[in-house]
Order: sequence, then C-alpha cells, then structure tokens
Amino acid sequence: MFIGRVKGSLWATRKDEKLNGLKFLVVALDESNGPQNSLVAADNTGAGLGDVVLITTGSSARLSLDNPEIPVDAVIVGIIDSVEMNE
Amino acid sequence: MFIGRVKGSLWATRKDEKLNGLKFLVVALDESNGPQNSLVAADNTGAGLGDVVLITTGSSARLSLDNPEIPVDAVIVGIIDSVEMNE
Amino acid sequence: MFIGRVKGSLWATRKDEKLNGLKFLVVALDESNGPQNSLVAADNTGAGLGDVVLITTGSSARLSLDNPEIPVDAVIVGIIDSVEMNE
Amino acid sequence: MFIGRVKGSLWATRKDEKLNGLKFLVVALDESNGPQNSLVAADNTGAGLGDVVLITTGSSARLSLDNPEIPVDAVIVGIIDSVEMNE
Amino acid sequence: MFIGRVKGSLWATRKDEKLNGLKFLVVALDESNGPQNSLVAADNTGAGLGDVVLITTGSSARLSLDNPEIPVDAVIVGIIDSVEMNE
Repeated sequence: MFIGRVKGSLWATRKDEKLNGLKFLVVALDESNGPQNSLVAADNTGAGLGDVVLITTGSSARLSLDNPEIPVDAVIVGIIDSVEMNE
Repeated sequence: MFIGRVKGSLWATRKDEKLNGLKFLVVALDESNGPQNSLVAADNTGAGLGDVVLITTGSSARLSLDNPEIPVDAVIVGIIDSVEMNE
Repeated sequence: MFIGRVKGSLWATRKDEKLNGLKFLVVALDESNGPQNSLVAADNTGAGLGDVVLITTGSSARLSLDNPEIPVDAVIVGIIDSVEMNE
Repeated sequence: MFIGRVKGSLWATRKDEKLNGLKFLVVALDESNGPQNSLVAADNTGAGLGDVVLITTGSSARLSLDNPEIPVDAVIVGIIDSVEMNE
Repeated sequence: MFIGRVKGSLWATRKDEKLNGLKFLVVALDESNGPQNSLVAADNTGAGLGDVVLITTGSSARLSLDNPEIPVDAVIVGIIDSVEMNE
C-alpha cells in the first residue's frame, strides 16, 4: 500500500455511470514510492487537501467500496494519524 | 488511477474477436505518473484527440465494459473537466 | 495495454503442463512504456518476428486464452496495422 | 514477491472499518526491487522493527488474511531466517 | 512474463502456514525488465541455481500451484532451454 498526501481533486461529468457519487482526489505519493509521483484515488474516508492518507491499489481497492463492481483501481482507505519510523 | 491526454489511436484487424467493436486510444500519461509515458486504453466515453482523461487499469478496468470478460487492462472511464491542485 | 515489437521467441521443455501448446514470444516494448524494455507474452494471434503488437497484461490477459485458468500474465491480443499519432 | 526490512509503523483511526485490528508496517524494500524504496504492508506474522520479511502484493496478498475480502494489497507473509545468494 | 536467472534461495520458518512446502528462490531479472533487478518466486519446476527461468506474476501466478488460494504473487513456471532473438 502507498502513503501519500492529498493535493487536489478532479471533476469529470462525462464518465462511466458506475463512478457517479464518488469523489476523486489527486494524491502526491511519498518519494519512497519510486518514480510515480502521484495518482488519482477514489476517497472513502472524507479526506481533504493536505491530509496524509493510506491508499490501496488494484482489485483489492474495490473491496473498500460499498459496491466492489465499480471500475476504480485506487482507493483512500485511511487518514493517517502518525507514522513512526526507525531508520 | 491515471490522468492522461489522448494523443492517438490504433487499428488492428488481426486481433482477439472479443476486442471487436472497441476503440483503442493511445494516451500520454502525465509526467507525475513516473517513467511510463504512455499506454493504450479502450475508450468507453467517446474521448477524442487532446481530451484529458481518467484511466482505470488492471482487472478493475474491465468492469467499465458491458462485458467484463474482455481481455483489456486499461479503460478510459471519464473525460476530465477540471483538476484543482493545491501544491 | 502496451505496444511492442516481436523480437524473439523462447522454448522451455520443463514447464507447467498447463502452458503446453502455447507459443511464447519476447516483445520489445515501446520506449514510452518506461524503463521496462521487454517482456514475454503468450501469442494468440499468430504474430511473427518484427510484427508490432498489442499486449494485455495481468489477470485480463488470461481472458484471451481458450482456458482462462492458465498461469500467464501477458498475452498478445492483436497485430497492429497502424498507429495514428497527433503530438 | 519482495524482500524488505521493517522500518516503522503507522496509525490511522479514521479508516475503512474492514481494516480494524490489522497492524500496518512500513517496509523498506531491498534496492534490487528497483526505484520503489518502501511500501506499507499489513502484518500477519508478528514482525517487528528491523525484521527482514517476505511480502506478497496484489490480490494474492489478501489470501494470507483470515478474511480475503479486506482492502489491502500488500501483506507480510513471512519473517526471513536467511537468504543464500550465489552471484 | 519475465525472464530471469536463479541466484539464491531463502528460508522463513515463521510464515503463513499456507506457504509450507513451497520453495522460494531469489531470481535476478534480465536488465530489459527495467529497474527491478530481482524478485522472489515460488518454484514449481525444480529450478536450481543458475537456471534461466520464465516467471509469471500477479494472480495468474497462483494458477500454477496445486492450490490457487496460496498467497504468492510470483511463480517460476518454466526452465528456459533457449531464447532466440532477432534484434
């Protein structure tokens, strides 16, 4: 799973109807995730701009939605309180 | 999910029959997606050249098609109106 | 999905029996796909050396085979006639 | 599958209820895994800080949990005793 | 799918019971696979040190095992006899 920070949101009126009602946030990924700097995730936790979030990707992501048959591949599954590191 | 811009299309007469009727677009991925600059996605929204689009990948992508048993791993699920960023 | 060019083939006599009868081609991936330069894909279209092909990866790839319970994660699903780009 | 070393843990009170009871560890990935330096994995083995661990990702990861319908895409499936290399 | 060369093996006594009986090999990936230099795969073909092998990843990998409900995401599905390239 990824750690990231919410940095924006996007709107798409012409879209797959199954996506209706979902909020899509643009999340900047932590540098440690490698070259992918950001992704778009459906939000399921009420996250807002600047929140540090936990993201699940792939088919697993859909299990966080009420209806797992929705064509999304990344979902915000938690708003992170703290990360304790021991380098 | 990825943000990208439609930059071309492709034709393949000799292909898996299950792909018949689908339109395949070449999408340039936003730099923030890392080193992968582009991918091919089936279009489900009527997107055209220059449109900024939202792409779902993996098994989730197939859920956007009428028949989820079609061998595609990337589908355009929305045409983006606007992206609001707060760096 | 990826665009690539067939550049070789491989043989493996000691392999999972479920793979018997499948042809495995080595495909050079288009530079735009990022740092992964090539992959091995099962061929389902009769592609040959030098052909430009369309590749589906992940669980979706298996849906292109007669038996989707075969352990492959990349399948050539089309031989590309033309790609029209508008940079 | 990845080899990594546990370097931290994270807490998220506001999260998908299905994740309740799971421990999330931050794992530094071995350099050989490429540019992705770390990821977050649910722990299923009682791993602790500094442990070298084996990680499964994607839908396969969920099979290591009692309930495979939990939205996680990376699980620690083993604590590695030794790795014997022959360069 | 990936081409790689077996360069080591690993042992983990404290692991998910479902992994019991499986042999885990460390495989160096061909440079052409991009920045990921190696991965860990369950072996299903009796491969040994120095063998050049064919690897399936993701959910497809599990289909090569007798029990597809085992939490692994990479399996060696063949020992390669020869690769014929035509640059």
